Amino acid sequence: MVVRPERLTAAATAEQETHQPQAAPWSRQHLLDVDNLSREEILLLLQTAEGMEEVLQRRVARTPALRGLTVVNLFYEASTRTRASFELAGKVLGADVINVAGSGSSVAKGESLIDTVRTLKAIGADVLVMRHPSSGAPQLAARQTEAHVINAGDGWHAHPTQALLDAYTLQKALGSLEDRRIVIVGDITHSRVARSNIWALTTLGARITLCGPRTLLPRGLEGVAGPRALPHVEIEDDLDRAMAGADAVMALRVQRERIKGAALPSLREYAARYQLNAERLALAEEGAPVLHPGPMNEGVEVSAEVAHGLQSEVERQVQHGVAIRMAALYLLARTGA
Amino acid sequence: MVVRPERLTAAATAEQETHQPQAAPWSRQHLLDVDNLSREEILLLLQTAEGMEEVLQRRVARTPALRGLTVVNLFYEASTRTRASFELAGKVLGADVINVAGSGSSVAKGESLIDTVRTLKAIGADVLVMRHPSSGAPQLAARQTEAHVINAGDGWHAHPTQALLDAYTLQKALGSLEDRRIVIVGDITHSRVARSNIWALTTLGARITLCGPRTLLPRGLEGVAGPRALPHVEIEDDLDRAMAGADAVMALRVQRERIKGAALPSLREYAARYQLNAERLALAEEGAPVLHPGPMNEGVEVSAEVAHGLQSEVERQVQHGVAIRMAALYLLARTGA
Amino acid sequence: MVVRPERLTAAATAEQETHQPQAAPWSRQHLLDVDNLSREEILLLLQTAEGMEEVLQRRVARTPALRGLTVVNLFYEASTRTRASFELAGKVLGADVINVAGSGSSVAKGESLIDTVRTLKAIGADVLVMRHPSSGAPQLAARQTEAHVINAGDGWHAHPTQALLDAYTLQKALGSLEDRRIVIVGDITHSRVARSNIWALTTLGARITLCGPRTLLPRGLEGVAGPRALPHVEIEDDLDRAMAGADAVMALRVQRERIKGAALPSLREYAARYQLNAERLALAEEGAPVLHPGPMNEGVEVSAEVAHGLQSEVERQVQHGVAIRMAALYLLARTGA
Repeated sequence: MVVRPERLTAAATAEQETHQPQAAPWSRQHLLDVDNLSREEILLLLQTAEGMEEVLQRRVARTPALRGLTVVNLFYEASTRTRASFELAGKVLGADVINVAGSGSSVAKGESLIDTVRTLKAIGADVLVMRHPSSGAPQLAARQTEAHVINAGDGWHAHPTQALLDAYTLQKALGSLEDRRIVIVGDITHSRVARSNIWALTTLGARITLCGPRTLLPRGLEGVAGPRALPHVEIEDDLDRAMAGADAVMALRVQRERIKGAALPSLREYAARYQLNAERLALAEEGAPVLHPGPMNEGVEVSAEVAHGLQSEVERQVQHGVAIRMAALYLLARTGA
Repeated sequence: MVVRPERLTAAATAEQETHQPQAAPWSRQHLLDVDNLSREEILLLLQTAEGMEEVLQRRVARTPALRGLTVVNLFYEASTRTRASFELAGKVLGADVINVAGSGSSVAKGESLIDTVRTLKAIGADVLVMRHPSSGAPQLAARQTEAHVINAGDGWHAHPTQALLDAYTLQKALGSLEDRRIVIVGDITHSRVARSNIWALTTLGARITLCGPRTLLPRGLEGVAGPRALPHVEIEDDLDRAMAGADAVMALRVQRERIKGAALPSLREYAARYQLNAERLALAEEGAPVLHPGPMNEGVEVSAEVAHGLQSEVERQVQHGVAIRMAALYLLARTGA
Repeated sequence: MVVRPERLTAAATAEQETHQPQAAPWSRQHLLDVDNLSREEILLLLQTAEGMEEVLQRRVARTPALRGLTVVNLFYEASTRTRASFELAGKVLGADVINVAGSGSSVAKGESLIDTVRTLKAIGADVLVMRHPSSGAPQLAARQTEAHVINAGDGWHAHPTQALLDAYTLQKALGSLEDRRIVIVGDITHSRVARSNIWALTTLGARITLCGPRTLLPRGLEGVAGPRALPHVEIEDDLDRAMAGADAVMALRVQRERIKGAALPSLREYAARYQLNAERLALAEEGAPVLHPGPMNEGVEVSAEVAHGLQSEVERQVQHGVAIRMAALYLLARTGA
């Protein structure tokens, strides 16, 4: 079942042909989603992250680029890696970082999201990094504040810095993503990671094969496609067929609460049909990189052997996450609108 | 029912006449309450905050004034804005800031307040910013430590930096507060914000009209007056009458738990009689500033229209809070006893 | 019941005789336990802490020794003093410090300890300070990461920086510990503090008298001795006899949950037999220092009079804790393998 490839917009096509990302200065106020980023913008982010990796490899891995600025991590959902990754990204750039958790804050007193966001801006937040269980919350916040808003994951909707770090990781492993075929396997419907990756990777020219139980694949892809014409996306519910000749594969985390909700078969059955294991990985191109947004359920969506095997990019993804978040903070706060 | 105006002390009167706050260096070890601050001390705090606002407006909004010092936020009650405001204030001044929450700490192991305070001083706290549900806790702590203690809100008792930021905001909006009439509406009895504001504003020469349901007004004002003679305070239980010709108005947050406790009528009835809405605001002087300590219950103590209207100073209060807290940290840590 | 004193190893003996700790550079990657530290290594840590105390007494008590490095506090158990102490130690040395709590993190999503540790290293942790309820967790973590791991307390097993700060405090109070007799009173079996102190203090030449209810003393001392031959350790279940002529005494915190578990008599009975009070302290050498790892249950394992008396070193222990942790961070991160 091949979804017909269409160019995203005429403008995007033009940008892709000029190949001069340096020429386009960053002009966005917020980083809320990937679906409206041009190829040029994505390449500028990845290129800026390259520079940030160099900073991270210095003996004194710090730079005062954002000195005097305040980054607030506003997390309405628990997260270790994303919160710590943004915290370090801000500190490496010389910003001050303040953590505000949804619980234990005024949120618990029933303050509205909008008031919280305005308050944090008034306190001095230059950038608000926001994770929220409701899709659209960062967009709502962004309309109400002059602070820069970075979506660090909202509901089932989007997780742009994750998609950017995945694109960065894949580009490092594969070179250009043009015409590469990347398998995303798991619960596509409820995954903001999958959704944002589809936009980022197809914008960079890749083809995507989505794979998973039918109950967890978006019906007719409406959910995936969103407002724009559908990019190079294919659906395949057999993982062996999906893996045959794939250039890379990304396994998604099984949310155990889906099991109870009956949207998923048992973990055992899921693992039997959709676990990324060594045999299945062997069907892909030699050395095909394996990605996972973490934290992994080893033995469920990925075997321990593959999780920690030579093709695993999982730790590099985490590493690249700091560079990508530095790039996002820098572009928004120093050159954004 | 007008409470007779009395001058606070002869000394205070003298200070008011000399108008040379610069002449009085700061000499206090702690900032625990407003009721013992002279007019000169309050003016010194507000004047120092002016300088801090200039720091905050710099391109690189940081200064190393408190570099090498450690501020510990010891919060036994949840708070977003006050904790984050002190955290940023400390960081802007170059101090290191460590957050310690009442829960999840040794407090949970039953350690006494005094031992916690002594331990934090021994670890290196130069300033302890403390919020506690029990009135008097910061006073108790201050007697047991050589660290500077700032009361960031204790029970129903006091919240000095809130009152100072309110005074600062009103002074910016109205100029001198001398003989200005300011309405405070809501649950006066249980409000540390009201209590501290009464002291701060009357010390600066303002007259106060307290307004709210009789169950939430202090009986005979004993609770308000404390150890000193009662300043320019008037009580009026009809909000329309209170608002007539007022120079400014401060609405207090309705604590929903008071409803259950039957000290308050229903929210609907409260809103009908005491909500600050556009019609009532129109009874005040033209352009009278509207304050609220936040977070607001829109539609209860304040209408959405007024909360976000042109006369609302709510976001500026939050903004000024950082400057006031910088001033308090600076005066205590750099020039305090 | 005297346990026969044996030299720890021939090598250790040789080191003790040369008395040239300066000559031995630090070569360990991790600080996991005290039982494998040589006398020379312990002395190097204490000597480095001396230098750190000088830094802490400067007018601007900061040094950029670890600038550009990232310390992650990974605490699976709540702690005020240890976490804040490491946080300040890192900041004084110019490192960035990121706090990660076991709850509210990916840990809650079921991520394995090993994956968490690898993730934090990939994010950029140069040093992982780790507290965990399971004995051996930091050792497990250390085998899986290239970050430096400091054990900040694991189960009943070890708490090396506590033992080092205790040794440092005793050395300051008593001079050399050679042949000094130190009483440790309380629940020895379940105390990582006692276990690590036994190793540290005997390695420095002290003799230890363990005292407490038989149910809380290690059977045959197997648990205490571990893999090496048993050092100068004596057991005495009568506190008066233990205190007679002691050079110093350390009271351990009574874990109230042991009472329910019937391993302890009632608190009242415990206090009657094992509370360190003024009469018992008077049996020791004049001015014998009193230590406690905190937080203290005053009136249980220690009387209020002794807790806050002239011989109490409790606040100095906390103070020294920062210097010791600075020393550990510095030696591992700047000169470690």
